[in-house]
Amino acid sequence: MVTPQPFADRLADAVLSKRSPLVVGLDPFLERLPRALRDQAARDHADPREAAAQATRVFFETVLEQVAPHVCAVKPQSAFFETMGPAGTAVWEQLIRHAHDLDLLVIGDVKRGDIGSTARAYAQAHLSGPGACDAVTVNPYMGSDSVLPFLEVADETGGGAFVLVRTSNPSAAELQDRELASGARVHESVADLVAEWGAGRRASCGFSNVGAVVGATVPDELAALRSRLPHAWFLVPGVGAQGGSARDVAPAFDARGLGAVVNSSRGILYAFGAPETEQWQHAIGNAARELAAELREASGALAAPPR
Amino acid sequence: MVTPQPFADRLADAVLSKRSPLVVGLDPFLERLPRALRDQAARDHADPREAAAQATRVFFETVLEQVAPHVCAVKPQSAFFETMGPAGTAVWEQLIRHAHDLDLLVIGDVKRGDIGSTARAYAQAHLSGPGACDAVTVNPYMGSDSVLPFLEVADETGGGAFVLVRTSNPSAAELQDRELASGARVHESVADLVAEWGAGRRASCGFSNVGAVVGATVPDELAALRSRLPHAWFLVPGVGAQGGSARDVAPAFDARGLGAVVNSSRGILYAFGAPETEQWQHAIGNAARELAAELREASGALAAPPR
Repeated sequence: MVTPQPFADRLADAVLSKRSPLVVGLDPFLERLPRALRDQAARDHADPREAAAQATRVFFETVLEQVAPHVCAVKPQSAFFETMGPAGTAVWEQLIRHAHDLDLLVIGDVKRGDIGSTARAYAQAHLSGPGACDAVTVNPYMGSDSVLPFLEVADETGGGAFVLVRTSNPSAAELQDRELASGARVHESVADLVAEWGAGRRASCGFSNVGAVVGATVPDELAALRSRLPHAWFLVPGVGAQGGSARDVAPAFDARGLGAVVNSSRGILYAFGAPETEQWQHAIGNAARELAAELREASGALAAPPR
Repeated sequence: MVTPQPFADRLADAVLSKRSPLVVGLDPFLERLPRALRDQAARDHADPREAAAQATRVFFETVLEQVAPHVCAVKPQSAFFETMGPAGTAVWEQLIRHAHDLDLLVIGDVKRGDIGSTARAYAQAHLSGPGACDAVTVNPYMGSDSVLPFLEVADETGGGAFVLVRTSNPSAAELQDRELASGARVHESVADLVAEWGAGRRASCGFSNVGAVVGATVPDELAALRSRLPHAWFLVPGVGAQGGSARDVAPAFDARGLGAVVNSSRGILYAFGAPETEQWQHAIGNAARELAAELREASGALAAPPR
């Protein structure tokens, strides 16, 4: 059996070859999709979930082609697909395969968390088989029992996991920023677990297959967590709609421009404006190109032309 | 519009009418299903996921009929269904509807956790529409932003949510038992959030639509959390395979025998033993009846014949 190339190295290669740490989130808000696609889907399917799934599939096929030159990976968000029932699951898998056909990495934003054989089932569902992503997001609240099964499956498939550490939403502080008796905060103790889980999983690029989700909305914490977790890839949400800027992410990059990938969803997907817009396609590619350029600048090293 | 009856009251009615706080978890471990069902499914479907989905559907239709007299609710576990792709999503929904046809409540064990419009999409997927459960499990790591959207949808549908507070797995302690600077432990601060979220959501039975997942493997903590959260329904996993006993759950019940529902999965589902067993059906019903009787005894009040 050929040992698969580790996720951390595949991500490094993708960032360097695209000169872009940008990830586009695939969040299908039905009411924001181009009207023409929705109308066509409604004519084709009486079942509203089938219609929604078709509109989603057609829209995101174009999105993938538009953004492919400018992004290292895409991040489908499972919640929206789950609202469409079995048709949503089918589209979820189709888009993952389409992204792979375009040589894009896929980070499945599933934020799953359960234990033992249940966690293993989640990992198998999302890191292997016909719906295999390259990496998934996982929730650490239940501890190692809920994370290690993902890492074990990832070890077999050349996959990765991004553990929620400090998220970008306002109420993240309610639990994640609580101070522990040790003096550390809750999210810092989760960061220490991430370091532990990743210790035996470092790839040639210097980063581990066990990454961390760290929001861009708290730049000071991003810098502090960078020091605390020097070998973890960061998946950074919160740029754009949530208020973070490309510059806020600068502390997350190393001297090569590696170490962080930055997600934007709505600012790119719906850059065309109103659903009635007829020529919506290029606005998406342009928005991805512009944000990729800003992030390239913020990253330092990637701004230099490739040697 | 008719206001739906609140989940907390529907659960109280189900416990009192069945005289049983037992919940059966629906965890389809493919290799433990009766061999005859798997062989038939493999003959009917070349696609292994379609075959797995058929075997799962046929098995759990019988499980639901066998356990219906002895349980107040069932708890399908989404991880296993997700391994079967679109066919798994279809079976997930079919089993939810079949359980409802048998007047069973359905607690979707999805442990989702995300924020804002994404959390709302998860809630809509699992508390409304063709795959609507009566309640779902949710993960609190991201704070109110991730829980309130579920509660808002639940308010509209007469649904409920069980928030992970202190889970039953060994590594739960890594994060949930860490001591905070305030002196409380992490899971106690989550319990306080649960009390806050549930405060405006108490139903006639005295309990709220916002419940808590509290493991049976830590009886002292179960009693302490009962005092801390007097108005929350507890969903208690960990009895049976995970080492907790019916007696361990006694502190969770109030004088009426209400306040906790207790999940068992593998001890009931696979009570028939080896997959080769031909007469497997009644073993499942018998195991459910026996554990329901033990829990009825442990609960005190439910042991008395109904007035």
